[in-house]
Amino acid sequence: MELKIGRMEHGTLNSIADIPGVTVGHCTVDDDRHKTGVTVIMPCEDDIFTNKMVAACHVLNGFGKTAGLVQIQELGTLESPIALTNTLNIGLVHDAMVEYMCRKAEDNGYSIRSINPVVAECNDASLNDIRHRAVGQAEVFSAIASACADFPQGDVGAGKGMTCHDLKGGIGSSSRIIEIGNSRYTLGILALTNHGSLKDLTIGGQNIGMEIERQIRDDTPDEGSCILILATDLPVTSRQLGRIIRRCGIGLARLGSFVGHGSGDVFIGFSTANRIPVETDVMELRSIHESHMDKAFRAAAEATEEAILQSMLHAKTVTGYSGKVRRSLTEFWQP
Amino acid sequence: MELKIGRMEHGTLNSIADIPGVTVGHCTVDDDRHKTGVTVIMPCEDDIFTNKMVAACHVLNGFGKTAGLVQIQELGTLESPIALTNTLNIGLVHDAMVEYMCRKAEDNGYSIRSINPVVAECNDASLNDIRHRAVGQAEVFSAIASACADFPQGDVGAGKGMTCHDLKGGIGSSSRIIEIGNSRYTLGILALTNHGSLKDLTIGGQNIGMEIERQIRDDTPDEGSCILILATDLPVTSRQLGRIIRRCGIGLARLGSFVGHGSGDVFIGFSTANRIPVETDVMELRSIHESHMDKAFRAAAEATEEAILQSMLHAKTVTGYSGKVRRSLTEFWQP
Amino acid sequence: MELKIGRMEHGTLNSIADIPGVTVGHCTVDDDRHKTGVTVIMPCEDDIFTNKMVAACHVLNGFGKTAGLVQIQELGTLESPIALTNTLNIGLVHDAMVEYMCRKAEDNGYSIRSINPVVAECNDASLNDIRHRAVGQAEVFSAIASACADFPQGDVGAGKGMTCHDLKGGIGSSSRIIEIGNSRYTLGILALTNHGSLKDLTIGGQNIGMEIERQIRDDTPDEGSCILILATDLPVTSRQLGRIIRRCGIGLARLGSFVGHGSGDVFIGFSTANRIPVETDVMELRSIHESHMDKAFRAAAEATEEAILQSMLHAKTVTGYSGKVRRSLTEFWQP
Amino acid sequence: MELKIGRMEHGTLNSIADIPGVTVGHCTVDDDRHKTGVTVIMPCEDDIFTNKMVAACHVLNGFGKTAGLVQIQELGTLESPIALTNTLNIGLVHDAMVEYMCRKAEDNGYSIRSINPVVAECNDASLNDIRHRAVGQAEVFSAIASACADFPQGDVGAGKGMTCHDLKGGIGSSSRIIEIGNSRYTLGILALTNHGSLKDLTIGGQNIGMEIERQIRDDTPDEGSCILILATDLPVTSRQLGRIIRRCGIGLARLGSFVGHGSGDVFIGFSTANRIPVETDVMELRSIHESHMDKAFRAAAEATEEAILQSMLHAKTVTGYSGKVRRSLTEFWQP
Repeated sequence: MELKIGRMEHGTLNSIADIPGVTVGHCTVDDDRHKTGVTVIMPCEDDIFTNKMVAACHVLNGFGKTAGLVQIQELGTLESPIALTNTLNIGLVHDAMVEYMCRKAEDNGYSIRSINPVVAECNDASLNDIRHRAVGQAEVFSAIASACADFPQGDVGAGKGMTCHDLKGGIGSSSRIIEIGNSRYTLGILALTNHGSLKDLTIGGQNIGMEIERQIRDDTPDEGSCILILATDLPVTSRQLGRIIRRCGIGLARLGSFVGHGSGDVFIGFSTANRIPVETDVMELRSIHESHMDKAFRAAAEATEEAILQSMLHAKTVTGYSGKVRRSLTEFWQP
Repeated sequence: MELKIGRMEHGTLNSIADIPGVTVGHCTVDDDRHKTGVTVIMPCEDDIFTNKMVAACHVLNGFGKTAGLVQIQELGTLESPIALTNTLNIGLVHDAMVEYMCRKAEDNGYSIRSINPVVAECNDASLNDIRHRAVGQAEVFSAIASACADFPQGDVGAGKGMTCHDLKGGIGSSSRIIEIGNSRYTLGILALTNHGSLKDLTIGGQNIGMEIERQIRDDTPDEGSCILILATDLPVTSRQLGRIIRRCGIGLARLGSFVGHGSGDVFIGFSTANRIPVETDVMELRSIHESHMDKAFRAAAEATEEAILQSMLHAKTVTGYSGKVRRSLTEFWQP
Repeated sequence: MELKIGRMEHGTLNSIADIPGVTVGHCTVDDDRHKTGVTVIMPCEDDIFTNKMVAACHVLNGFGKTAGLVQIQELGTLESPIALTNTLNIGLVHDAMVEYMCRKAEDNGYSIRSINPVVAECNDASLNDIRHRAVGQAEVFSAIASACADFPQGDVGAGKGMTCHDLKGGIGSSSRIIEIGNSRYTLGILALTNHGSLKDLTIGGQNIGMEIERQIRDDTPDEGSCILILATDLPVTSRQLGRIIRRCGIGLARLGSFVGHGSGDVFIGFSTANRIPVETDVMELRSIHESHMDKAFRAAAEATEEAILQSMLHAKTVTGYSGKVRRSLTEFWQP
Repeated sequence: MELKIGRMEHGTLNSIADIPGVTVGHCTVDDDRHKTGVTVIMPCEDDIFTNKMVAACHVLNGFGKTAGLVQIQELGTLESPIALTNTLNIGLVHDAMVEYMCRKAEDNGYSIRSINPVVAECNDASLNDIRHRAVGQAEVFSAIASACADFPQGDVGAGKGMTCHDLKGGIGSSSRIIEIGNSRYTLGILALTNHGSLKDLTIGGQNIGMEIERQIRDDTPDEGSCILILATDLPVTSRQLGRIIRRCGIGLARLGSFVGHGSGDVFIGFSTANRIPVETDVMELRSIHESHMDKAFRAAAEATEEAILQSMLHAKTVTGYSGKVRRSLTEFWQP
């Protein structure tokens, strides 16, 4: 596959797992009634609760139910893994993340009285019987247990029932290399894609969707959502990270989204470069000078555009519980 | 009790239930291990999902886990009751609210594929074994079933295990009357109080906390949170309501809070005056002219100050699962 | 010229002046030392101060000096014309707008003690001796006096010295028609363009910039700014308008911007449909139902994309005071 | 004078000038027609443009015209002194600050093409003929030239024509000491006060205003504004500073304000502890651990409460151009 989105170099895996320590796990619930699941992004191998990460979030369009943003906004830190699931499963996945973090704390010899799980969602109701919240503690724990750097993409985990530009969406990832001075850093995106109209689908600047729409005659409103998780080893403050993740919207737009009314377009970013201990007096934070931000902005835009596309390229055609079929982009277009 | 906070007249019940249609229900979990519960604010008697309310939210300090704010911020509407509980119970209460709304929709002949439950929390871990999430679907449904205008206050429902200015906090409510032209409107506050230092406690402008602290020697950091729910029948837009709820912070400050770092001070407001149907073309919204906002601002500040105080005046002394005692303000001060 | 950006129909003039009452005036300062000026958007023919308009603003990237946003954000209203100029001229243009509004009030028999002029800027220092603030009261009054529906575009007014995607930018405009129920509404954009890298320039989804860059070898960082003024006769609240103007970023991205660090990308919108008097009790505001927002979103994205392009298509090649040449896009590409 | 507001120790000067390097200058315009002026806060002795400071801003109520906030919000830095003046003088003072910065840059051997002056305002129209913008370049340069650590307070500079709680307001300042580990830091506030109702005036928790109002029968709406400038040598990020300045609202509330509709309550903070050079690769920023924020929060609240009070205690009775008299608090109350 010789796909080239943008001008920048990608990392070895061309995924969010190019950032050292970051892994991703899925649990897919795929039966007659369900096409859904959960995907967990593990930000590090060590204990994130006692060694928090600089984080930021941005809501491009807020028709969504993501939990955990209030605290990220205030404190600029991430203290748990990030879970993605379907819209009505936010509660059970949140509860499972609380249980996971409490148990992990006990294993590590301390006790948690407060934790801020981050749980984001898209709505897979067109393929999945969403009212029957199928993702519980077992599924969340299974996703965490399976986390690795070489994770599958496409119609897996939280992406199982998602629809992107009226074709099959799901989980996609991509990364870009950033050079500042003599150092090389990596920025990666993991996308859960469930947005966009078919007619607007644009790849590498070229509209592809019009032609596909003529073939399958299925152009519905730009209604769904897109969750974008950005990880980087760039040393940045929360304010800087907030600026960077806002550029994810550029990538979304380039693939053809105009960020519809019904969309929950939520972007969450974290940096592995500065860790925040539970207690100390004065810290030294490393942060890139603002004049280098353009490199990170472009990386965020390009990696987003490609991550969304990868979610479609990896996804196979899926038939939903009600008979609805979402076809794979690869039936119509190959890079 | 001849307590007078501020200059404005209060409503008949002096509570959030003075707003026609608004009721409040509790379920308290009170056993050896638990001092916790859930409180649900029902915004109307009819179906809020198909007839949404204008809403707004404001986070004064975001060290909190409230779920549901993203969508309120974007759409300016409330489409579900509002539930309050303990910090680690957000997930299970969220899931119960999803179940409640799905069932209610089915009863009403339609089907929900997406719903934005609003669930706010304070941390009752000093009196309650919080890791054992004791509030589930049964408790939430019981709270909803018990909703009425003449609801109890103090150490009940979500307020059972809360601590305010180092004394016993919990649920409190108050209301104020607003006159514009020839019309009378009501603005009410329901508070879940779990914030403040004892030394800072100030009633009617007078510091009370210093003297009480000398007696009980228990002044801990201003760590907890305060959730404030504002209801009104004032016709307002979401932007206007956003301005009004920001004044809740004035009431908090007047009772002595300086809005500590560890606080999740989250304010959520809704107006019963404009209902938003699921579909139409162009609507007529009624809204007060901006020049009358000061009346609503003062009402929000006064009702907040009194609601917090009422939470303390209604709360009895409670002994927690670990033996920790939170004493009632009324042991030290009577209005 | 048979240029087609997007899918929607444009208005008669294909400009912001398609919204009834909206006119635009320029004053250009063009001499050996200066390539600069001022552009004023007049939102209505009658007195806007005593009959304000619903307004909203959004800052996509805030490396800019726009004055007047604080009050728009709080009150959701516009009470003056909007002026555009160069970065260092914000102060003098602000003062001139104060003088204009004070005089106009006196003409209308009342007196102003407070007014919120809205003055936005881009930086034309590459062609203009910006430290010598050449736009004063005479120029502002001249621009206002010249305001009309059939205003020129390109290298005029505030656009005289601007650079877009390393070619000549300036003032551009476009409009789109929105149908809701049986009514037709118009949404128009006026752009002051001073942003973007040449290599990223993309027209109708096709990268044009790479080829032009090979010819002129002038690709500088994406540093400048883009000011977008949105006018519409759609009945909307300030919150809804805020959602609509955020989609201007989509149009920016589609032409190739990735919203660089050094950019002041500021979007200001107003609706002529609801006028706010100085005093009353309760008002009736008309507002479209949220379910129709997608039409306005798409219109904002398309009109922005085209307005930016029009600014380049109308601009002639300009040589700056220091000899720097900014060439017209039309030397390289014709629609 | 033995005034004690709050629990914390104040600095040597009990003013914003307790922060090393910070000075304040005034120019007062006091004649038959004018009671106005300009006050400039100089954040350091060296060149702030090439050595920027970490900064943050917060708008508690945005009925105001402050210029310069957009860039502070985005970049988290201050690159100029901060000027305070009357509402309609924003433009001329902005222009004067541009001229000052351009000249200073030339003196220092470089050249400015873009600068973000920060100019805040309150409305002194009840005592000053505000339409005749009396503060120009000469006044701004004079204020800067007079900047010192031992600056006067009360009815001077921008404070000359201001009204606070219906009595004479103006310029006030106060500071507090913060201890973290073995280090002592200082946080100072400079207030320009023009807000509040007389009946609400509360000093040290005690309502004073009711009694004064009975004597002078002059209780007008809480209409004006309050500008609060916070300086500190605490090492903080922009996000942290943003949290700290939000607590200025607590101090405002404690003196009796309920942050009226017509108020432009704007808070701007800067830290002298981390300086940002024009260019580098990766920086080391020092920042206090979040767990120490409560000390800074309390310091901001206390210093604000006292700075506002000091503005009233230092202000003498002033008679305006139209004969309106604003009496000094000291005629009615002495600490």
